[in-house]
Amino acid sequence: MIARVFVTLKPGVLDPQGAAIRRSLGQLGFDGVNSVRQGKVIELDLAETDPKAAKKRVTEMCEKLLANMVIENFEVELEP
Amino acid sequence: MIARVFVTLKPGVLDPQGAAIRRSLGQLGFDGVNSVRQGKVIELDLAETDPKAAKKRVTEMCEKLLANMVIENFEVELEP
Repeated sequence: MIARVFVTLKPGVLDPQGAAIRRSLGQLGFDGVNSVRQGKVIELDLAETDPKAAKKRVTEMCEKLLANMVIENFEVELEP
Repeated sequence: MIARVFVTLKPGVLDPQGAAIRRSLGQLGFDGVNSVRQGKVIELDLAETDPKAAKKRVTEMCEKLLANMVIENFEVELEP
């Protein structure tokens, strides 16, 4: 079973990478971009086949390793 | 209009970050993880309100700046 984890900075946390992307887009002539935020996506291929158990386990992984809970939010999405 | 861009490494491209995450998960006792791939998610807040035009523009942004087309794939997702 494939799980996708989206890790994004919490609102209000400074995002220099996002700001750099926005500036570069402007320099390339892409106007009308109000803001840019960059995050991570982590794709896990799990041996677990039960969706409930997989989601619980991936949430634990996020809390322990994949996300920094002080400054980041995460979302878990399962693909069958 | 919010656009979300997912940039992931093409299959076959070596992913040392993903491999490091997999090893760390194993050390923390999370077994049953067959493989891990790490990518980027970029959230753009656009002034554009037409979904078709927005998607076209974001695809251009990906091809020119956001993704390295040699080693990365991208997906564009629009939120109304």
